[in-house]
Amino acid sequence: MTSIGIFGNLGRMGRAIEAAIPRTGGSFAGGIDHGGDASALARSADVLVDFSAPGALDRHLTAAQAAATPIVIGTTGLTGAHHRRIDEAARDIAVLQTGNTSLGIAMLAALVKDAASRLGIDWDVEVLEMHHRAKVDAPSGTALMLGDAAAEGRGSDLSDLSVVGRAGLTGERTDGTIGFASLRGGTVAGDHSVIFAGNGERITLSHQAESRDIFAHGAIRAALWLAGQQPGRYTMNAVLGL
Amino acid sequence: MTSIGIFGNLGRMGRAIEAAIPRTGGSFAGGIDHGGDASALARSADVLVDFSAPGALDRHLTAAQAAATPIVIGTTGLTGAHHRRIDEAARDIAVLQTGNTSLGIAMLAALVKDAASRLGIDWDVEVLEMHHRAKVDAPSGTALMLGDAAAEGRGSDLSDLSVVGRAGLTGERTDGTIGFASLRGGTVAGDHSVIFAGNGERITLSHQAESRDIFAHGAIRAALWLAGQQPGRYTMNAVLGL
Amino acid sequence: MTSIGIFGNLGRMGRAIEAAIPRTGGSFAGGIDHGGDASALARSADVLVDFSAPGALDRHLTAAQAAATPIVIGTTGLTGAHHRRIDEAARDIAVLQTGNTSLGIAMLAALVKDAASRLGIDWDVEVLEMHHRAKVDAPSGTALMLGDAAAEGRGSDLSDLSVVGRAGLTGERTDGTIGFASLRGGTVAGDHSVIFAGNGERITLSHQAESRDIFAHGAIRAALWLAGQQPGRYTMNAVLGL
Amino acid sequence: MTSIGIFGNLGRMGRAIEAAIPRTGGSFAGGIDHGGDASALARSADVLVDFSAPGALDRHLTAAQAAATPIVIGTTGLTGAHHRRIDEAARDIAVLQTGNTSLGIAMLAALVKDAASRLGIDWDVEVLEMHHRAKVDAPSGTALMLGDAAAEGRGSDLSDLSVVGRAGLTGERTDGTIGFASLRGGTVAGDHSVIFAGNGERITLSHQAESRDIFAHGAIRAALWLAGQQPGRYTMNAVLGL
Repeated sequence: MTSIGIFGNLGRMGRAIEAAIPRTGGSFAGGIDHGGDASALARSADVLVDFSAPGALDRHLTAAQAAATPIVIGTTGLTGAHHRRIDEAARDIAVLQTGNTSLGIAMLAALVKDAASRLGIDWDVEVLEMHHRAKVDAPSGTALMLGDAAAEGRGSDLSDLSVVGRAGLTGERTDGTIGFASLRGGTVAGDHSVIFAGNGERITLSHQAESRDIFAHGAIRAALWLAGQQPGRYTMNAVLGL
Repeated sequence: MTSIGIFGNLGRMGRAIEAAIPRTGGSFAGGIDHGGDASALARSADVLVDFSAPGALDRHLTAAQAAATPIVIGTTGLTGAHHRRIDEAARDIAVLQTGNTSLGIAMLAALVKDAASRLGIDWDVEVLEMHHRAKVDAPSGTALMLGDAAAEGRGSDLSDLSVVGRAGLTGERTDGTIGFASLRGGTVAGDHSVIFAGNGERITLSHQAESRDIFAHGAIRAALWLAGQQPGRYTMNAVLGL
Repeated sequence: MTSIGIFGNLGRMGRAIEAAIPRTGGSFAGGIDHGGDASALARSADVLVDFSAPGALDRHLTAAQAAATPIVIGTTGLTGAHHRRIDEAARDIAVLQTGNTSLGIAMLAALVKDAASRLGIDWDVEVLEMHHRAKVDAPSGTALMLGDAAAEGRGSDLSDLSVVGRAGLTGERTDGTIGFASLRGGTVAGDHSVIFAGNGERITLSHQAESRDIFAHGAIRAALWLAGQQPGRYTMNAVLGL
Repeated sequence: MTSIGIFGNLGRMGRAIEAAIPRTGGSFAGGIDHGGDASALARSADVLVDFSAPGALDRHLTAAQAAATPIVIGTTGLTGAHHRRIDEAARDIAVLQTGNTSLGIAMLAALVKDAASRLGIDWDVEVLEMHHRAKVDAPSGTALMLGDAAAEGRGSDLSDLSVVGRAGLTGERTDGTIGFASLRGGTVAGDHSVIFAGNGERITLSHQAESRDIFAHGAIRAALWLAGQQPGRYTMNAVLGL
């Protein structure tokens, strides 16, 4: 049975991961938060997950490298320096870093990229998302990630194509653009759709999160997969064999 | 069999109506466009439909009044003066004026108003629409009409509540607002959804038009209904018994 | 502050209701399960909710009548005798009995009935539902309730109209029938849609439950509403002012 | 400009293709139906499309082979003998045979297969379709094709997994099965969705046809693509580069 150690085990994600481990076939190796002995945790676990804070990343990676323990990094707010540190650690151990641990979203992004690369430019791409009323920005980071996947599939860069907040006298749609629309309300955990609107037909690729538990679930599945991997840097795509 | 005369029979809507009449149990009494004898047409028809131009409205109403023939007015771009002229004619004959002859949309607007009046303010209202790539404005007129229905159901005015083109750092959703989002692409004839997002549940009321033929179909059904009515001014709601 | 007493407070619904009360502006008066002093609970609460078992209904109603305390009954599996007992109690106290305490579903059923009564027979009615993989029957009770609402709107009886489990060589759709389709999978708490499919257009009225908490939430809202009512028998519609 | 010859040009599909050619950058080389000189048509066209009848297939292939003209075969009702005859012809000329000429459906099937192969068995697969009221069978051929794609992605055979017409006391969902549900009503040209329902999340991959014109549009695009190909047997996937 693979044992999982958690950096940041008292945060929202850390607690959700600990609670979900028993149902996944893994075991809980222990956790630390704001201090605690990172080295001991790294030695006692088969794989680590880190949902703490960017400031602790270097210390956690050092412990993981010393113990030769693979690590999943879900901490957000990473800078270029953090990413370079991750690349360095990935020479010694398996590191999976991601801003979104949902397997469904990783799968959706891969499908969107594939569809965008094969359907012609006469299939207009639109990204729609809905989130709860407390969300303070639009479009969601995940919507932008899906738009990126579509742009990449077309060999373009999203920043050249995106149209956000369509309103008023917009004129006709410009060919090749990628539109974004955001709905807010209630307690919606997160719905995303990418629409390919062609001549007389439409393909819609959607993901619905019932609750934010799926991020904990995905982080654990990533950890269980990562436990057996060679040193290197991985993304959620690798967990899906993409 | 009720005979229908068409003002503006060479326009897009006029031709669509003439083409659809045989399948509806009515008959075609004739039509005129840019001139032609309005009085003769009004006398020969059991009911009239007008999809011509605002400038011809007075002449068409005069002919309808003289012949005591009911008239459906679908001409858009009417001003206050036109509406007063319609009110005047409605003392003598049955007049149904509407900016949207789809029965489905009239039904949807009635349901939206009812839901908004009964569900509390903790059900956030969002309006989503999608139209073809050639549409030049957003949100659609029909989306605004649905937003109006929701605002009316809450005893408010849409202009105080509407949030259009959400993008960037929006902050949390303001209670009681009505959000609008617009998608554009392909050849979509017109999809509209009104979402009531509550705590842990969502109600979505939607309409999909497969093609623009539904407007001709609805205009004919309105005309057949209007043929037997008393003088007065009517809307599509009356056709549905609302 | 209205205090709520719970019969069956150790069951799944009873615990969910107790947990949700603090966020609703009510207070928890206490609860009993499998025995306990029903009379004392009825005297100490402003309103009661019963999610216990049919066998305890008579005892709970007797206690409520003696204390003149209104009661919401969400217990399922009631027979004709139970319903007659409820009618009897409703002469003395306010009683709200329902098989589904979601306000959103009550609202949807009312909208479905209204739409069915106004749209002609040429709008085909279909009911679609999706639930989690552990559900053992199809269609769901709520789907049948929505089909009932549509049939009632048309002045018919669902048992004469329903078509379930369409498969194979079905022949063309029979006018006026109401079709049901069921999807099963994952952990879906409950999605329901009623589709009115007309000529060239479709109206879809949908409800999505994010989790089963909405039933606890709705039961509490019903209780808070019922606390101030005159004797009589009520349904969830009354809570919505329907 | 590529010229397209049509076998079966007086049938519904043949006429739709002829009408659509001018908007696609191809030209119409002529057509025959129930007789006519197949050899002359094959010699005068750059590429052929056949939407006639199985009984004429051998004659049309012989003409195409003699003239070395590629051919798209959309005729339905083919038997094993017809397929062997196609394989034989494909040694000499490029032949694309398909039961569904929509590019969107081909794309969707490819995405479904990919998703099914990567998502684990804990993502339940359901296929939903809606068609107009005149359709006489269920599920649709396209729904079964999508179910096939999902089964293939899982390395299984659909016949071992499919569950059709779920109704009554079904018991819990069996892991690994693929469910089908069919809605009928109105004038819906064809909606298909494949749902992957996981733990706490759902991926839905959908296609909507606005009208049956897309099949003519797809057949022409297939023909224009096939005109330049080497001998061999192709499917719609090849047109998408799959």
